[in-house]
Amino acid sequence: MAKKNEGFVKNITPMDEDFSRWYTDVVLQAELMDYSEVRGCMVIRPYGYGIWELIQKELDARFKATGHKNAYFPMFIPESLLKKEAEHVEGFAPEVAWVTKGGHEELAEPLVVRPTSETIICSMYAKWVQSYRDLPMLLNQWCNVVRWEKATRPFLRTSEFLWQEGHTVHATNEEAQEETLKMLGVYKDFAFNVLAIPVLTGRKSEKEKFAGAEATYTMEAIMHDGKALQMGTSHNLGQHFAKVFDIQYLDKDGTQKHAWQTSWGVSTRLIGGMIMVHGDERGLRIPPKLAPIQTILVPIAFHKPGVLDCVKDMTEKLCAAGIRAEMDDRDQSPGWKFNEWEMKGVPLRIEIGPRDMENGVLTLVRRDTHEKTTIPMEGAADAVKAMLDDIHANMLKQAGERMASQIKRVSERQELIDAVNEGNFAYAPWCCGTDCEEQLKADAAITTRCMPFEGQEEAEGKVCAICGRPAKAMTYFAKSY
Amino acid sequence: MAKKNEGFVKNITPMDEDFSRWYTDVVLQAELMDYSEVRGCMVIRPYGYGIWELIQKELDARFKATGHKNAYFPMFIPESLLKKEAEHVEGFAPEVAWVTKGGHEELAEPLVVRPTSETIICSMYAKWVQSYRDLPMLLNQWCNVVRWEKATRPFLRTSEFLWQEGHTVHATNEEAQEETLKMLGVYKDFAFNVLAIPVLTGRKSEKEKFAGAEATYTMEAIMHDGKALQMGTSHNLGQHFAKVFDIQYLDKDGTQKHAWQTSWGVSTRLIGGMIMVHGDERGLRIPPKLAPIQTILVPIAFHKPGVLDCVKDMTEKLCAAGIRAEMDDRDQSPGWKFNEWEMKGVPLRIEIGPRDMENGVLTLVRRDTHEKTTIPMEGAADAVKAMLDDIHANMLKQAGERMASQIKRVSERQELIDAVNEGNFAYAPWCCGTDCEEQLKADAAITTRCMPFEGQEEAEGKVCAICGRPAKAMTYFAKSY
Repeated sequence: MAKKNEGFVKNITPMDEDFSRWYTDVVLQAELMDYSEVRGCMVIRPYGYGIWELIQKELDARFKATGHKNAYFPMFIPESLLKKEAEHVEGFAPEVAWVTKGGHEELAEPLVVRPTSETIICSMYAKWVQSYRDLPMLLNQWCNVVRWEKATRPFLRTSEFLWQEGHTVHATNEEAQEETLKMLGVYKDFAFNVLAIPVLTGRKSEKEKFAGAEATYTMEAIMHDGKALQMGTSHNLGQHFAKVFDIQYLDKDGTQKHAWQTSWGVSTRLIGGMIMVHGDERGLRIPPKLAPIQTILVPIAFHKPGVLDCVKDMTEKLCAAGIRAEMDDRDQSPGWKFNEWEMKGVPLRIEIGPRDMENGVLTLVRRDTHEKTTIPMEGAADAVKAMLDDIHANMLKQAGERMASQIKRVSERQELIDAVNEGNFAYAPWCCGTDCEEQLKADAAITTRCMPFEGQEEAEGKVCAICGRPAKAMTYFAKSY
Repeated sequence: MAKKNEGFVKNITPMDEDFSRWYTDVVLQAELMDYSEVRGCMVIRPYGYGIWELIQKELDARFKATGHKNAYFPMFIPESLLKKEAEHVEGFAPEVAWVTKGGHEELAEPLVVRPTSETIICSMYAKWVQSYRDLPMLLNQWCNVVRWEKATRPFLRTSEFLWQEGHTVHATNEEAQEETLKMLGVYKDFAFNVLAIPVLTGRKSEKEKFAGAEATYTMEAIMHDGKALQMGTSHNLGQHFAKVFDIQYLDKDGTQKHAWQTSWGVSTRLIGGMIMVHGDERGLRIPPKLAPIQTILVPIAFHKPGVLDCVKDMTEKLCAAGIRAEMDDRDQSPGWKFNEWEMKGVPLRIEIGPRDMENGVLTLVRRDTHEKTTIPMEGAADAVKAMLDDIHANMLKQAGERMASQIKRVSERQELIDAVNEGNFAYAPWCCGTDCEEQLKADAAITTRCMPFEGQEEAEGKVCAICGRPAKAMTYFAKSY
């Protein structure tokens, strides 16, 4: 391992020079992923998958706390099922993978590999939902999905990716809307409190909504380069799918009614967002709650008597206190190790050498501020936990300050384009016209990101920053991943 | 829900009348799974998936404790990769699903949906393994796999299923062999201590081994009907894959050497085994460690004042103590509820009525013995935990006694066939000839299950029970799922 990684830090392209190459360098050098022999598909290596496992654990607990249960539906969807909902098939058909042969036989009906599971799940809901007593039905699925992408980027856009998709059925539109917003709220809470990423939430435009949805709500984050990353979406599906799949329930009043549905999802893309929000010139910075290694313990002068034992003992104490701690006892210089673990984004480094042992202290170095402090060995676990919490809070604060500096209020077309081209989100009154939005995208590769829930009164009496027609909503605009 | 399930117990075919229909009735009625619109693929419903989540949790902890990390590899494998190892492709090509089209374009090279991931993983190991310092490499993957099966049965054999596959690389044959047996040991420990299923372990015959392995080890269990279920396998892959994928490392002595590998897996099939070992005329019996609901609390005379509150309070206390407890406050008779939860295999039922409240006691009814006992409310959580442990122990004991009664020592061909046809495993000296094994399978649909690790000295000087040639190994024979 050692030899292969030598000089890793100088292999990272400076962020300002080429953000896209910086990103690729970091994901490869930190061993989060690797390219495979399969076009557009990546391998998620143990360090990257460890982050995904922590994301799953945190989200899954939140889904269960809000009454959802996990299930598993077939990955293959018959062509006829996919085609039932017209907008849905139009949205997804261009990017699905087709299975046409099983064993040595051509299939009578081709199957698509799920790009999302509304259709197969609705076909089951039509059987399972009979009475108002069956509602709400609140299911979630963790799985792989495939969208045949032309241009791919690790974690951000790959032909196969991992995600979760929630699918719920309700008796009324109000309940469905409440669920849609509740799950967006769960995502937002997760973004702030686990990813340490401040997000903007709001409604998607008609053009940008999910294929087959009544309304799509989103959380968007601003990357270092000012581009937007859609981090998660929650859809109110209305009765679109319930009508074509005939999901009906017998209501208390004795009449048959079509049900109302939602779906919502986040994916391994969250890892890409984490990298692009928190990373710096030295590489990754992983927020403590998602760090597979929260604290790395590095022995100083480790051949001196007692040093390794002391480091091992402290590592065990921290682990016993529930901290994800590891020791690095490889035969390398401390400086080399410091570089590697900084590049890999470990939130906190602990150094222990003969002098620390004499004084009964530990030397702590934070990844977020590079600040060095000394704490007593006695009661170290509590101090480490408190510092990890503080690192989370500081990373969220740093990201929030950068976000605030990257949102520009504008009121005219050129001003909007300039703001975005300079690496910002533009916030402007908008007419909500699909024609207006399409023109802007064609001319400047800028898209609407969302119409936030708050502050919409500001649009009243204003004109659209792009086309000059009466404004209907305050909207965020940006280039996006 | 209530209405649809009415009379569920009488809908289960008696086990002795038709074991296969009993099985199908149980998996459907207990809502473990449902059939989908996709041929050979099933939906795993929340109650069934809850069991799988607990299996994952228990196994994953054991994998991590033995030094393994999780990763994720692409689901699609280029045809050329699958074809590299000759025996492997011969074994799997007849049963793979082929992706031939992405979006609207025909693919230049068809992709198979992984039936197992040796080939794609080995293509990465060839990049990652460079030096002896990189070894051992110990990875595991939780994922879906596809094998295009002609005849399918829920959990036991479906075109798509969920599993874990461990893939490891070692410097020497000895280390690979040690890992192979260590992981079989992990599976065996899991079978006894979590599934409450006694298993037979040993080596597979040449004919029955994994396509591309040097040797395959297996754990086999005896179902109620005497048929065998292969519950998990661990393969020593030797250098078969390392040579064709060119996985070499620079050893300490400065020379390049091919690595040695293992792979091992268990799947959702374990759920099928659990059902067929523990189930009875009333339906499922889930071992406590895998029960999504370990204890169901049923209020008696629940409209009487205080009953529901008391049941709710006790449910919360049990949950707080780490017991998976739920209350059933639906508007149904207690008898109806008893039937339903027995059918669903909940290990322990707690009844609380006005009289119990007066006396400060709980009435407990075990699913395994139907035994009814009364315990004080005070300190109930500890008593419930102890009883769940006892239920596990008793289920394991019951299964062990049945297993012992279903193994027949035989020494002649007709005796072997009769024993198996009467619903047993036959244990006999065998010549280890593939021709002999194939003839037996053709004539009587009986296969070799494994050659156990212990007691092989018994074969010395004996003749093969089937063909009369000199015996080489004591072997279990059975019909199998």
